[in-house]
Amino acid sequence: MKMFRKLLTLDEAQQVIHQHFKPKVLGVEEIKLLEAHNRVLAKDATAKIDIPPFNRATVDGYAVKAVDTFGVEENKPAKLKLCGIVNVGEPTRIVVTRGTTAEIVTGAPIPEGADAVVMVEQTERKDKCLYVYSAVAKDENIMKAGADIKKGEKILEAGQLLGSREIGVLAAMGMAKVNVYAIPHVAVLSTGAEVTEPGEKLLPGKIYDINAYSLAAAVLESGGKPIYLGVFPDEMSKLQKALRQALASADMAVTSGGVSVGPKDVMPRALDSLGKSSVVVCGIAIKPGKPTTVALIDKKPIFSLPGHPTSALLVFHLLVRPIIECMAGRKARKDLRVKGFSTMRMFPAKGRRTFITVRLKRDKLNRLVAEPVPTGLSGAITTLAKADGFFEIAENQQFINVGEEVTVRLFKRLEEGET
Amino acid sequence: MKMFRKLLTLDEAQQVIHQHFKPKVLGVEEIKLLEAHNRVLAKDATAKIDIPPFNRATVDGYAVKAVDTFGVEENKPAKLKLCGIVNVGEPTRIVVTRGTTAEIVTGAPIPEGADAVVMVEQTERKDKCLYVYSAVAKDENIMKAGADIKKGEKILEAGQLLGSREIGVLAAMGMAKVNVYAIPHVAVLSTGAEVTEPGEKLLPGKIYDINAYSLAAAVLESGGKPIYLGVFPDEMSKLQKALRQALASADMAVTSGGVSVGPKDVMPRALDSLGKSSVVVCGIAIKPGKPTTVALIDKKPIFSLPGHPTSALLVFHLLVRPIIECMAGRKARKDLRVKGFSTMRMFPAKGRRTFITVRLKRDKLNRLVAEPVPTGLSGAITTLAKADGFFEIAENQQFINVGEEVTVRLFKRLEEGET
Repeated sequence: MKMFRKLLTLDEAQQVIHQHFKPKVLGVEEIKLLEAHNRVLAKDATAKIDIPPFNRATVDGYAVKAVDTFGVEENKPAKLKLCGIVNVGEPTRIVVTRGTTAEIVTGAPIPEGADAVVMVEQTERKDKCLYVYSAVAKDENIMKAGADIKKGEKILEAGQLLGSREIGVLAAMGMAKVNVYAIPHVAVLSTGAEVTEPGEKLLPGKIYDINAYSLAAAVLESGGKPIYLGVFPDEMSKLQKALRQALASADMAVTSGGVSVGPKDVMPRALDSLGKSSVVVCGIAIKPGKPTTVALIDKKPIFSLPGHPTSALLVFHLLVRPIIECMAGRKARKDLRVKGFSTMRMFPAKGRRTFITVRLKRDKLNRLVAEPVPTGLSGAITTLAKADGFFEIAENQQFINVGEEVTVRLFKRLEEGET
Repeated sequence: MKMFRKLLTLDEAQQVIHQHFKPKVLGVEEIKLLEAHNRVLAKDATAKIDIPPFNRATVDGYAVKAVDTFGVEENKPAKLKLCGIVNVGEPTRIVVTRGTTAEIVTGAPIPEGADAVVMVEQTERKDKCLYVYSAVAKDENIMKAGADIKKGEKILEAGQLLGSREIGVLAAMGMAKVNVYAIPHVAVLSTGAEVTEPGEKLLPGKIYDINAYSLAAAVLESGGKPIYLGVFPDEMSKLQKALRQALASADMAVTSGGVSVGPKDVMPRALDSLGKSSVVVCGIAIKPGKPTTVALIDKKPIFSLPGHPTSALLVFHLLVRPIIECMAGRKARKDLRVKGFSTMRMFPAKGRRTFITVRLKRDKLNRLVAEPVPTGLSGAITTLAKADGFFEIAENQQFINVGEEVTVRLFKRLEEGET
């Protein structure tokens, strides 16, 4: 264990995690397209049919042979014999020959023999005859089969998050089912002698668990499925049992201490006891998040996050979320970022990359300002309720000044992609 | 029906809809907090307990009476008698009296009699005695009960969308269950003789349904639950039956025509036949979306949208989504908007507010540009796949010029709130 005592930088920690664990998608499952919202497409989707599937009329009017209208004018109409009507959604046996025409409505298939449609406004009907007062060119007012999408054309790429528009595109191909990536299961548990599950009676000296609840929701927001395991005391045998349960029920696990106690020695030791050299990161030179521990057991990653709720979410955001997204098959997405002005001079912790959690506000000049909210022991819940995101101070940076512009990474995310 | 023939402006249409239907939340249900992600809080949440629930130590050290340390210095320490140890999560019977001290760890409850904590670094232990080398003030290194949140304090407001942070805040109060608003059910169906359900065989002259699928997903994105009813032909009796089914199974309904055929007379007539003066909007002076029809039957709104998939989504975005959000209890949220430069000169349709669907790109100067994608009959699927959002040209505006800056409203949304 001693080899881990030197703190890694954040970049080193990320490299070490990546050396030991390359996140991959977990499999493909076929589901109903109607249930595919917010899932991730597992295979490139190619058009199985032409769109439109047939030559169709784009106006209400009359299907003709264009050549029959050549040279016609307002006072010199063509006279064609009506041979029927073509409706939408119906196959037709009508064949348009020289000198004949068929009535047609928008969206109906062009009958055999016809190669143009005359708009109804440019015609006049008398008995069984049609007078055409304007010439049409070949293909005029016709949308050709495949003009929108050709059969075999790629329409969506694997890794695409499916929203309303993408689901519409797949429906257009007639797909009632779709192949999507399996959802990674993430076990979530809290540790600490003083931590009590919400809903239970709060005994003297105890506090309610926050992290298993907020981290379970954060797993959902990252595209994973949380497996809530509850609260475990900081005892070696019970932690080992909890971790074995986590690994048996999920593809990875996230643990955190109670609000006051970070994962002290007992969690790293429990992790280390479960596999040879299982702990790969034990402490990171960041603030908050220094006690963060990462282990790999049975090739599954386990992240042990700090106990402070906002710090736990922040480290989750930095280290865990990108891995869940990767396992869920989502394309790498950047945080939503906004620029704001710092309202205070903020110093980094010595030798540690420092993340300042902030609340975004508008100042008197209507400028967006980033107001630091403390992540210390005081105000844990207030901080959690108020923190919109965080900005970063580099290890070697002296300070961020009052009024200096900073880039705030938001805890909230866009539904799909970013702009 | 004749009274509806004059097209309403978009503003008039919205007013008329609001006159006839004031969207309200549908009820409150108690669910598990672990399942509350993305639900909407139905009641203001107030703190049921103090946070922290007890006076707690914020450092590892020794609980003392501050007065026992007054005047001590590096070379003139106080000598106190050790009377026990206080751990986290355990009630203690220890009482600290003048001249005594108890060992205490971060997060543990301050024992009776003690009013400050000396940091371990400022002490030295010898046998059963503790030497204190630095004075502490009363309350030093103690976080008082309720210092973060006082019992009875409002912590979240009704209407709050519950994300990871809000769920954490509620967990901190010990809430394992939470009251949220019921999810509005929205029946979704498509109409058109040529429209075929995805998964079925495509007969000659037919096309696959897009809108019921994309609109069902859009309902989810708005906080509603779609009830998919499928495809119905444009026949009076079948449409009436479908609409009755929609109203019986849901709180509102959204219909649309096939890709080529808008809701022509048959849908307004079917709607009108189901209730006295049920149609309140029949045609709106917008492009696209002119044939949009809105009816109220049994006090439930039915929106009949245009058949073109991107137009249907656009009108859904303008008229339907705000109503679903309201019924879901979500706070009014604005679209996510970005500024971009138009790549073409675009004219409005005469007398109609015109919405230009666009794809966002970066130009050579890395500026965000809004490239119009046509919503006409050609390229329905291509448009759907490409359209990121839309900008607006007012009825009385002459045109939007090449290079003019426009505000693009995105189809995609933020997970929670906006900045």
